[in-house]
Amino acid sequence: MDDLELQCINTIRFLSVDGVQQANSGHPGTPMALAPAAYTLWQHHLRHNPADPHWPGRDRFVLSCGHASMLLYSLLHLTGYDLPLEELESFRQLHSRTPGHPEYGLTPGVECTTGPLGQGCGNSVGFAIGEAWLAKRYNKPGQDIIGHSTYAFCSDGDMQEGIGSEAASLAGHLRLGRLTWLYDDNHIQIEGDTALAFSEDVGARFAAYGWHVQGPLDGADTAAVSSAIEAAKAETARPSLIILKTIIGIGSPQQGTGEAHGAPLGEEGVRVAKDYWHWPQEPKFLVPDEVRGQMDARERGGQQQAEWQQRWEAYAAAYPAEAAELQGLLAGKLPEGWDGGLGGLFPAGSKPIATRSASEKALNAIAASLPNLIGGSADLAPSTKTLVKDGGDFGPHGHGARNFHFGVREHAMGAVVNGLALHGGVIPYSATFLQFSDYMRPAIRLAALSGYGSIFVFSHDSIGLGEDGPTHQPVEHLMSLRLIPGLILIRPGDAHETAEAWRIAVRHRSGPVALILTRQNISVLDRAPEDAYTEQDYGGALCAGAHGLRQGGYILWQAQVGTPDCILMGTGSELQLALEAGRKLAAEGVNARVVSLPSFELFDRQDQAYRDDVLSPAVAIRIGVEAGVRNGWQRYTGRADNAVGLDHYGASAPAEELYAHFGITAEAVYKLAQERLLG
Amino acid sequence: MDDLELQCINTIRFLSVDGVQQANSGHPGTPMALAPAAYTLWQHHLRHNPADPHWPGRDRFVLSCGHASMLLYSLLHLTGYDLPLEELESFRQLHSRTPGHPEYGLTPGVECTTGPLGQGCGNSVGFAIGEAWLAKRYNKPGQDIIGHSTYAFCSDGDMQEGIGSEAASLAGHLRLGRLTWLYDDNHIQIEGDTALAFSEDVGARFAAYGWHVQGPLDGADTAAVSSAIEAAKAETARPSLIILKTIIGIGSPQQGTGEAHGAPLGEEGVRVAKDYWHWPQEPKFLVPDEVRGQMDARERGGQQQAEWQQRWEAYAAAYPAEAAELQGLLAGKLPEGWDGGLGGLFPAGSKPIATRSASEKALNAIAASLPNLIGGSADLAPSTKTLVKDGGDFGPHGHGARNFHFGVREHAMGAVVNGLALHGGVIPYSATFLQFSDYMRPAIRLAALSGYGSIFVFSHDSIGLGEDGPTHQPVEHLMSLRLIPGLILIRPGDAHETAEAWRIAVRHRSGPVALILTRQNISVLDRAPEDAYTEQDYGGALCAGAHGLRQGGYILWQAQVGTPDCILMGTGSELQLALEAGRKLAAEGVNARVVSLPSFELFDRQDQAYRDDVLSPAVAIRIGVEAGVRNGWQRYTGRADNAVGLDHYGASAPAEELYAHFGITAEAVYKLAQERLLG
Repeated sequence: MDDLELQCINTIRFLSVDGVQQANSGHPGTPMALAPAAYTLWQHHLRHNPADPHWPGRDRFVLSCGHASMLLYSLLHLTGYDLPLEELESFRQLHSRTPGHPEYGLTPGVECTTGPLGQGCGNSVGFAIGEAWLAKRYNKPGQDIIGHSTYAFCSDGDMQEGIGSEAASLAGHLRLGRLTWLYDDNHIQIEGDTALAFSEDVGARFAAYGWHVQGPLDGADTAAVSSAIEAAKAETARPSLIILKTIIGIGSPQQGTGEAHGAPLGEEGVRVAKDYWHWPQEPKFLVPDEVRGQMDARERGGQQQAEWQQRWEAYAAAYPAEAAELQGLLAGKLPEGWDGGLGGLFPAGSKPIATRSASEKALNAIAASLPNLIGGSADLAPSTKTLVKDGGDFGPHGHGARNFHFGVREHAMGAVVNGLALHGGVIPYSATFLQFSDYMRPAIRLAALSGYGSIFVFSHDSIGLGEDGPTHQPVEHLMSLRLIPGLILIRPGDAHETAEAWRIAVRHRSGPVALILTRQNISVLDRAPEDAYTEQDYGGALCAGAHGLRQGGYILWQAQVGTPDCILMGTGSELQLALEAGRKLAAEGVNARVVSLPSFELFDRQDQAYRDDVLSPAVAIRIGVEAGVRNGWQRYTGRADNAVGLDHYGASAPAEELYAHFGITAEAVYKLAQERLLG
Repeated sequence: MDDLELQCINTIRFLSVDGVQQANSGHPGTPMALAPAAYTLWQHHLRHNPADPHWPGRDRFVLSCGHASMLLYSLLHLTGYDLPLEELESFRQLHSRTPGHPEYGLTPGVECTTGPLGQGCGNSVGFAIGEAWLAKRYNKPGQDIIGHSTYAFCSDGDMQEGIGSEAASLAGHLRLGRLTWLYDDNHIQIEGDTALAFSEDVGARFAAYGWHVQGPLDGADTAAVSSAIEAAKAETARPSLIILKTIIGIGSPQQGTGEAHGAPLGEEGVRVAKDYWHWPQEPKFLVPDEVRGQMDARERGGQQQAEWQQRWEAYAAAYPAEAAELQGLLAGKLPEGWDGGLGGLFPAGSKPIATRSASEKALNAIAASLPNLIGGSADLAPSTKTLVKDGGDFGPHGHGARNFHFGVREHAMGAVVNGLALHGGVIPYSATFLQFSDYMRPAIRLAALSGYGSIFVFSHDSIGLGEDGPTHQPVEHLMSLRLIPGLILIRPGDAHETAEAWRIAVRHRSGPVALILTRQNISVLDRAPEDAYTEQDYGGALCAGAHGLRQGGYILWQAQVGTPDCILMGTGSELQLALEAGRKLAAEGVNARVVSLPSFELFDRQDQAYRDDVLSPAVAIRIGVEAGVRNGWQRYTGRADNAVGLDHYGASAPAEELYAHFGITAEAVYKLAQERLLG
């Protein structure tokens, strides 16, 4: 290691150490240990342009051990991203762009939000899949316009989390040759030596997954690290794991102990560490000029991007149609008329159909015009109905296909789909039973927190699942997902609304959408043509058009004009119960209104006037119906007991029997309304 | 294989096939494939007494692939459990004891609820740990009173789920020699050949975890299976994996395909399969007498239990104190005065203390009198404060210690703790940050669904966590956990309530309790002595005693006697904000009442009179305060905007700044109340 290299590494180390010390909070030990490997990767291998963090041809870097955020912030600052030193000095402070864990969208160059362990591992697999898919689809002989790499730094925790194992198993299976994980095998976690809890042979495990494994090697030996990265790049048929032996907090009094992990070194600790590394005690946040000169990657990155741009021009000249399509995908543009296929999918008089099946039709109706709408299921595709016909199977030898087979790995699926959304160029979806949303909830949350355009399809959404029983019947999941800030949940009430839901999910690229679908068949409501339904049509056989779903909630039907006597609200398969009850009340002269409320989140985003128009505050009797826990309906009903639902687990039996048994029926809605009307 | 053996195996097969066919729903293929291995295990190895399913010395059997439930029901019926044939005939019907997936507590002999894949794997590790812990603690030289085995059947899905990987890694690390998994390597999952998604070398992976791996061997070769189980029993230092090659739906037209997995064979399929196996077409649910004679395990099991009982008598004679203690533990009895240490832990004038630290004191105050209160953290013990002092580290060479180190494996931790609770003899707890409850939510749900006495400790329960930022700050988690039916969540409002919360958690053995604790210090409220606080004391410096927590909510303080003008409710760290606001209002002559509401679930279980007494319906102004999403408070406040909270993500900054920034302050509570009072 030459002097300048050591200086660069120490600059990274002490920017991190000083940042943590100044914040009096954070994780200094890992940046200190990983600085040599990070420097090596970023200086000699990572292709990126700090001046254009969105260059599609860049390599992706994921800090899965997000607690080492100061390592990343130091690298971003030193290589020339728009992250001035003042931001590093305000690490972990309000309004800074240097939060405790890296957040996508807040800090340029942060490719994904990490911190909850294992998520970055899953995201990195999504990045690599995104690259592989675009490469397979758009590269031409001699014209490899797509060909970037994905690197992730992973910690012991990432190796222990199940999601990390799932992601690794999937990546090995898929032979993602452009994916490299650098595993920081520092033998220390928060409770002490990893030997307390973790004694497996990680390298052998990854070899069993089909990975190319190197190491353990000395993580401070930059030449060795660089050679290993070279070898990883040369290995194109398998993902690579490079195991780095490092010493956490190296040079500090806490080195090699759990104390170096999650607490500042303290003034004395900083002093000792700086002495150890022959680093000036002052000033803090020191960046020597020669380090800045060495590490600033804007020129190099600009050249790399310019070369790529040249290749792009050549590609575009040779393959103008492909180039135009690819450009559109990378820009996130939807083709003109992409959703034309959604109209007329369900003509009047359609037979009852499960919304999961309606979803299959909708998905396939837009699949042709959206070649980059790709996704799959956690081994439930025949049930979730999420296969794109003739889309092929994305697998180790078919990286251009559209149907993913995630295996029974819901959590990795969520993180992979997030990675795909982050990668760009594709519109990704996952699918499983609603019950198993619990298995992937941390990934859903991160998508919502940081605004990833992931589409999460969940079928088998209630006791309507039937015989599989309470272990598989969601009851709390609808309300529980609705509590995640930023997630848009849509539970369409019939086939028409299902098509609308897909339209919204595809359009909504700034955050995740969960589509909630029935297993069981439900009626396809007879609908008026779009926008043709007015108050004059009240009381007729038709319902309002399903485009009202775009507002989250809308008046589906009403007995007569004028202020209603009561409002019945329903979602999903229970919407028809509300409608049936409403018609029964109407037959008795009650002016009942039926409101479809497929998306609380979209409805809550409407202005007060619209919401008051739909759920008139003047109407005291407002009743919700949904086959799930009732708590959460109060915001619309006004009182806790104005809902028909179930506040307990389901049972194993045919679906219709369960609905009757648990009293989730049109009759129950009707009776409750009657009771309230009588007062 | 002799004729009788084949007959027994076919009886299992066709009880399963007929059950699924009759239900017109279920999973016939796996029971058909696993019947030989299941017969071999149950007939020749499993020590159990169908006449006494609760015999503590029994081996534990876990069907982690719970969808193959008819396999288990068939075995239970044939070996003599109280599960008559009619129950098998009403498979998956309402009110039967044979639901789609096995449910603990519903069906005798079902050791744990399975179906959501990987959960049974985790439970089985919990069973094995429970055995190991009791064995290490109570066995004496020549007197191995504890020494049973745990067997689990696992599917491809169990191998793919992250929780399965976490559990296997932990089991290998802990050297659980009495644990054996039989992996049904049938190469078929729902989407088709496992090669679609899963091509790793499972055996090599488990070897890397430190397991003893046998196979792949022919799962239909009963002699080979039996030998492998023998070898697994002989291997006492490592858990064993036996890989069985099987053919799903063997003998049916669907054999070896995904169609055999999750759908009935159909009448024709059943006919072909019965022909193939030379099985009579009729009657359905046939159990030949000789099969019944062969498989009824009551006599053999009775003898095994009687021998064990003899050994117990000898043990009790030699070690009466240990025997008495062990008997108490196994009976789930709490020793007299076990909670005496909880009194007086926090004398008047105690300094502010985080409830996680108060929890540490409470835990250690009862640890001595509850030797079987064991547990640990997912690598956050120094933060969750859940170490029992001098409790030792449970590890590969210390199976009698009390402090578990789960590694960063929250999901397996949840399932392991569930398995410990199910095993009996111990009171288990887990610990992590509240944020990571999402990582273990499926395990929490199963504990709630089936009533396992697991204690889930969650610290760092809000934006009060501070600098780690929004990735680590729960905002929706409190309300989201409260939606899980059967889970009791307790978020104590000060140190006194924390001690009470532990009292309840330990007592509540019929379901899970989540203890929600602060990272940050909060005031220890000056409390009146237990039961000494009456209306006469209103307006004084003291608050009511914390024993009110047993009712979930109680009047903490009130300005004056009589009907209050407003009620301020708080939980956890925000209780003190409610109190401060209440006192400020009182200074202005408002008769404010402050209610502590640490457990919505316990409060909701009180009778109407009590609830009305605390949250008088006559008082229209009821305001909740909690540092989390507000939706869910309406049931107590009456209107959605009568709560102080935050409906969005937090930020990375010091905790006090965040509280001020997001307006979760006593001032905000005070102002909202004032606004409502003015009207």
